[in-house]
Amino acid sequence: MSFVQRLRTAQHAFASRVCVGLDPVPERLPAPFADHRTDPQALADFCIAIIEATAPHCCAYKPNLAFFEAQGAAGYAALESVIEAIPNTHLCIADAKRGDIGHTARFYARGLFDHLGADAITAAPYMGRDSILPFLRTPERGVFVLTRTSNAGSADLQECPIDAKGDLPREPVYQRIARLVQRWSAHPESEGDAGLVVGATAPEALAELREVCPALPFLIPGVGAQGGDASAVVDAAVTNDGLILVNSSRSIIYASDGDDFADAAAEAAAELQAALG
Amino acid sequence: MSFVQRLRTAQHAFASRVCVGLDPVPERLPAPFADHRTDPQALADFCIAIIEATAPHCCAYKPNLAFFEAQGAAGYAALESVIEAIPNTHLCIADAKRGDIGHTARFYARGLFDHLGADAITAAPYMGRDSILPFLRTPERGVFVLTRTSNAGSADLQECPIDAKGDLPREPVYQRIARLVQRWSAHPESEGDAGLVVGATAPEALAELREVCPALPFLIPGVGAQGGDASAVVDAAVTNDGLILVNSSRSIIYASDGDDFADAAAEAAAELQAALG
Repeated sequence: MSFVQRLRTAQHAFASRVCVGLDPVPERLPAPFADHRTDPQALADFCIAIIEATAPHCCAYKPNLAFFEAQGAAGYAALESVIEAIPNTHLCIADAKRGDIGHTARFYARGLFDHLGADAITAAPYMGRDSILPFLRTPERGVFVLTRTSNAGSADLQECPIDAKGDLPREPVYQRIARLVQRWSAHPESEGDAGLVVGATAPEALAELREVCPALPFLIPGVGAQGGDASAVVDAAVTNDGLILVNSSRSIIYASDGDDFADAAAEAAAELQAALG
Repeated sequence: MSFVQRLRTAQHAFASRVCVGLDPVPERLPAPFADHRTDPQALADFCIAIIEATAPHCCAYKPNLAFFEAQGAAGYAALESVIEAIPNTHLCIADAKRGDIGHTARFYARGLFDHLGADAITAAPYMGRDSILPFLRTPERGVFVLTRTSNAGSADLQECPIDAKGDLPREPVYQRIARLVQRWSAHPESEGDAGLVVGATAPEALAELREVCPALPFLIPGVGAQGGDASAVVDAAVTNDGLILVNSSRSIIYASDGDDFADAAAEAAAELQAALG
């Protein structure tokens, strides 16, 4: 079963487009962890409690590797146990934003897919096709390529107009990347699925990108549990063929800093689930 | 002492501009490791032997994290022991090519600088300023930003002409990135040093980028131990203010697959050292 089919199955099973982002910061761990916040095991225990509480309301989890790597090999071991705890009914997106030459990208694929067991990863497009294609060689797995991010610095490069080239039109950098990802995903040797990372903050860009890539899945960060922009995101990006996976990290996992943190996280995930319809 | 001053000191001490890239691949480990190639400890032992043998001929080492992460937490622990083995007289560039929103980039900085103890790292510019500035907040450390890489896919984005914007001229994407890195490095809160990653395969691009960034250090991969392009690289990119650090990985560390692998690596490093003048 392809990654997109697996995503569709998981979304159907839980009636949810929500992805819970696991970005654990020692200083922000809730009350029950107060005595051992700097212990990498606390990161794992916190994330595992969040997973158990939120599973009925989401279809995927997205651990961001930065927060585990910050604690070195012990943090990496914590990441392994967190991924182990994600139920088989849910998908795991390793948010790694990797991008290196083809030879090296194959080893990132080995680490993220084969060793960590992620179902999909995120990758950066600056180095072009041979930095992305190795992530498409693994059947049933996916790669979401950074396309239009929602941070302040995204305007530095992503929104800049770039010349036409061959049969590619003049367009902003982020649209060019979307068009290239679409091609790479159709490469004859691509056995996995490609998708785009597109921030929720600009619904009009979401709609443009959906026209360029009618059937690629979009991973959409930047929606909070409040659900304010959720319906705009759904209107702009959801079609029969085009799935979206909406990620929320901090507004779910830090919904409470008290003993009720897991219940509060479940409630925040359920609110986002409902807002995404 | 700034990162650039430390680099200058190390280059002077060893009369070398060579950086030895540590990209260990289990299948390629030489004869002495034949019985335990898949053991992460073998990766560490191999790299440490390479470090001991090549230290007189280089000023820096560049472990690429992909090859360690491929083996998970145990591989990450091997990376920690490799970095531990780099002499204090030499610099360590963690080749991580990270790039994420500012909040997350701070945790990558924590992992790569504070935990691993790298002197500099590599980073990807697709997400713009707030993905790079957190790596410039650490005094005495450096960040080399991907600018013009030497792989096949680099043409997909990096060489495309991009419109003028504000006081930035119309120019290829890689020149725009160089100009932005130059600005970010001069940001009032930047206490570290920025540099560029520029492939050795296009000396004319090296010369253009040296004009745009007269004093930034360049990390230059893509030169083999044969020294063919070495003098062209030196002519194009070295000035009194502008240091270069020339990386070679596979042609040094796999110079021999026999019992003499360490001696052969030393010889290959010495040849590149001589070719770079």
